[in-house]
Amino acid sequence: MPATPILNLPLVLLSNRGPVSFDRDVSGRTVNRGAGGLVSALSGLAEHLDDAVWVCGASTEEDAVVASEAQGGSILVQTSPYPHVVEDEPDGPSIRVRLVTTDPAAYADFYSVWSNPILWFVQHGLYGRALSPVITLAEHDAFENGYAAVNRVYADAVVDEVRARGGKALVLLQDYHFYLVAERVRELCPDVVLTHFIHIPWPGPDEWRILPAGIRERLLRGLLGSDVVGFHTRRYARHFVLCAQDLLGLDVDLDNLLVFVDDRVVRARYYPISVDTAALEATLSTEDVAGHVAMLRYTFLDGERQLILRVDRTDPSKNVVRGFLAFGALLDQHPELVGKVSFLALLQPSRTDVPEYADYIALIGAVVAEINARHTKDGRQPIDLRMAEDFPLAVAAYSICDVILVNALADGMNLVTKEVAVVNRRGGVLALSENAGAHEELGEYAVTLHPFDVQQMADALYGALTMPLEERQRRLAAAAEQVRTHDVGRWLSDQLDDLAQLAGYL
Amino acid sequence: MPATPILNLPLVLLSNRGPVSFDRDVSGRTVNRGAGGLVSALSGLAEHLDDAVWVCGASTEEDAVVASEAQGGSILVQTSPYPHVVEDEPDGPSIRVRLVTTDPAAYADFYSVWSNPILWFVQHGLYGRALSPVITLAEHDAFENGYAAVNRVYADAVVDEVRARGGKALVLLQDYHFYLVAERVRELCPDVVLTHFIHIPWPGPDEWRILPAGIRERLLRGLLGSDVVGFHTRRYARHFVLCAQDLLGLDVDLDNLLVFVDDRVVRARYYPISVDTAALEATLSTEDVAGHVAMLRYTFLDGERQLILRVDRTDPSKNVVRGFLAFGALLDQHPELVGKVSFLALLQPSRTDVPEYADYIALIGAVVAEINARHTKDGRQPIDLRMAEDFPLAVAAYSICDVILVNALADGMNLVTKEVAVVNRRGGVLALSENAGAHEELGEYAVTLHPFDVQQMADALYGALTMPLEERQRRLAAAAEQVRTHDVGRWLSDQLDDLAQLAGYL
Repeated sequence: MPATPILNLPLVLLSNRGPVSFDRDVSGRTVNRGAGGLVSALSGLAEHLDDAVWVCGASTEEDAVVASEAQGGSILVQTSPYPHVVEDEPDGPSIRVRLVTTDPAAYADFYSVWSNPILWFVQHGLYGRALSPVITLAEHDAFENGYAAVNRVYADAVVDEVRARGGKALVLLQDYHFYLVAERVRELCPDVVLTHFIHIPWPGPDEWRILPAGIRERLLRGLLGSDVVGFHTRRYARHFVLCAQDLLGLDVDLDNLLVFVDDRVVRARYYPISVDTAALEATLSTEDVAGHVAMLRYTFLDGERQLILRVDRTDPSKNVVRGFLAFGALLDQHPELVGKVSFLALLQPSRTDVPEYADYIALIGAVVAEINARHTKDGRQPIDLRMAEDFPLAVAAYSICDVILVNALADGMNLVTKEVAVVNRRGGVLALSENAGAHEELGEYAVTLHPFDVQQMADALYGALTMPLEERQRRLAAAAEQVRTHDVGRWLSDQLDDLAQLAGYL
Repeated sequence: MPATPILNLPLVLLSNRGPVSFDRDVSGRTVNRGAGGLVSALSGLAEHLDDAVWVCGASTEEDAVVASEAQGGSILVQTSPYPHVVEDEPDGPSIRVRLVTTDPAAYADFYSVWSNPILWFVQHGLYGRALSPVITLAEHDAFENGYAAVNRVYADAVVDEVRARGGKALVLLQDYHFYLVAERVRELCPDVVLTHFIHIPWPGPDEWRILPAGIRERLLRGLLGSDVVGFHTRRYARHFVLCAQDLLGLDVDLDNLLVFVDDRVVRARYYPISVDTAALEATLSTEDVAGHVAMLRYTFLDGERQLILRVDRTDPSKNVVRGFLAFGALLDQHPELVGKVSFLALLQPSRTDVPEYADYIALIGAVVAEINARHTKDGRQPIDLRMAEDFPLAVAAYSICDVILVNALADGMNLVTKEVAVVNRRGGVLALSENAGAHEELGEYAVTLHPFDVQQMADALYGALTMPLEERQRRLAAAAEQVRTHDVGRWLSDQLDDLAQLAGYL
């Protein structure tokens, strides 16, 4: 846990998905811990504080029952040696959780209309503006009765927890679901120290002009209730400041990333999120992973063969189709690689209820079939496409791939890159989009990809596959060192140190 | 003609389409003058100077014959009382023209691959990035052998003309076809005073990142050969400076719109282009227009009826489909307007060889049919869609419309708005997109449209149609005054005055 005097303040966290959720099976109520680096970092923080509470959405039916039993209050979950609810006096690390329930129709408008797809599409630059979006009365209503209404419920829950702690607390808000929360919390609890961290890209003003003027202004004003608005990269932080200047007409200091609003100064800062390196190394050493490694070596790496890997959700922002087109161009232009280089794609189907996502999966299948038909040799097809989520398999593939392909059109950070840097044992090359947040940090050790430029990506893949092993290993070691010294704990402690300084504790 | 000492320098102009072109009919060679405010303004300038030459593309077969006869040199065209080529000693205003011919395959790559659609799409934000563009070897080749090669030919023609004038001249380059010219002219003729004016939007760095890194950098470096890069609006000029900073890493002064490159300072400036108000008034007073006015009044304006007008090319950037959707929503939500308000759309088919444009025309037809089927009343259909170019008809409609609808997604300036402001005689309301360049200048007199927000546009149309006549007339008069005092002559003279100051002549 970071040692900083800002943690003398009580802590109130807010995120859409929380650190635990509840289900039922034959044995009764079960408790599951959330996964991922963010949850584990913030849980690690909250577990070690005297007074912390995590406000989050009730995401399962059983969560709603638990929330109802708590009558709007919080519950205490002891997390070790196994997660279970306790009344009081836990005899191990514990975390206080407030599960928030909202009207299902309002939540649907909040989550499935505005958060995804609209905000996700705007922030990843995915709209083909000639035809979409078409903002109608339905989208306006969904904003008022969904996004704004749900934000108000969560804001009031945060306010409630802050007030229960005397009105002075450290408040950490997470991500694009809650852009309207900070302003309301600031208004009702002016003494908070408040950071809103945004985990997805923040584009320039042009992209935000896609949204109705009143709505984009409210989203920006909402965020400006924070003391610090946090991003993964300097580029996003600059864009945020430009938005405040161009869309709200506020005074800014672009070099120092400051926005002047009323009598306050709001700081845009950038803290690249990272991975839990210890947990990754532990996963790598499991038998499960070892079994996958043996299988993958046998399938893809006998003799002089090489393996390109990608691990992604099937989100159009990940640019899967152009990645395959680049691989196809590589084989067309370097026939000596046919039969020698394989491409393993582990893709997790995502948001298949959104038409653009369903269509994208079909297009992926079409492109893969076409390239495999063109370049299968000696019964071996060049692309192995697997549509499933399997983390041990992914870690096994990370460890032995020659190239990890990350060619996103836009990606807040991209943790796959950092995971590969930590666990790869083969001098794997990071082939990394200039539009992934990770590129600001790891670009100098990577082979840069220009995600719209299929020919450039084909050339870059060729460069990666033919790079001398010594050079590959040197770059990988440097990238791994950067990630190890900037893991997810560092992401959090840097933020807290800055807040302590801003709030006058240092 | 503007009186400024910068015109003591010889003048070299460059644009893709020039002030005259040649054809053949039974009588032999014919000479046609180019149309439009830009050509008339620059022609007016060139005609009155002792030493000016206009470099432009040979756009017809007969142009190529003329160019060949001139053996790469220029010809002299006397423009009054009728346009004709003279050998020497014209006895009226004349203009010297150098018609440039290029390899047809190179020109096709220059014009039909790179200028349109790629640069046009990037600068108007039209790509749906999930799927397009896909930059392959073909597009790279088309850049080298087309755009770059053709730019070199034109640059060398400009250099040739500058050198023939002792190496010191005022050079005015026009538009997105020639981004690589200024750098080469600067290199070979360091003593020129050089402005490159760009007539379409300049988006922020995100949009330019769609292009291959090497190409976007060359385009920017090319433009930075200028002393001044001119745009229609402050927004575009700011974006250009941000691109120099973000994509080239150059030092800039964003407040003063300066870019520091090597030992030079390049200025981004904005000069909103405008119309030739005298020529418009003259057109308005023709019998042809009067006949159209009578017909339009009879068809659309009997009794209390009102007319919404749009006049556009069928370019997706014009946002025709969402404009009709907004009109449909207006009639749905205000049934009392059905039968009372008509929408006349004069659309000029454009670039129908580009699939996106052909598809867009089909979609326009589909949406119009659907709305007309829903809202035809007493045999009157609400939308009258005419697919043709007819300038006298357009001017007639300008003069009597109640609302001119300009809802472009992105539009460098939009001169229709200014034309209507000058010739409308009915208190017509300018319903104007926030993303049209004209909005920076005329927004305060207009009803602002948010082009992605169909509901907002429906509400804005309702507001325009029900605005008290006095208020309509007050706004229109103010807009007309702004345009009359800032016509196309002013656009040119402001630039020349600034150049004179920069070059130390004032």
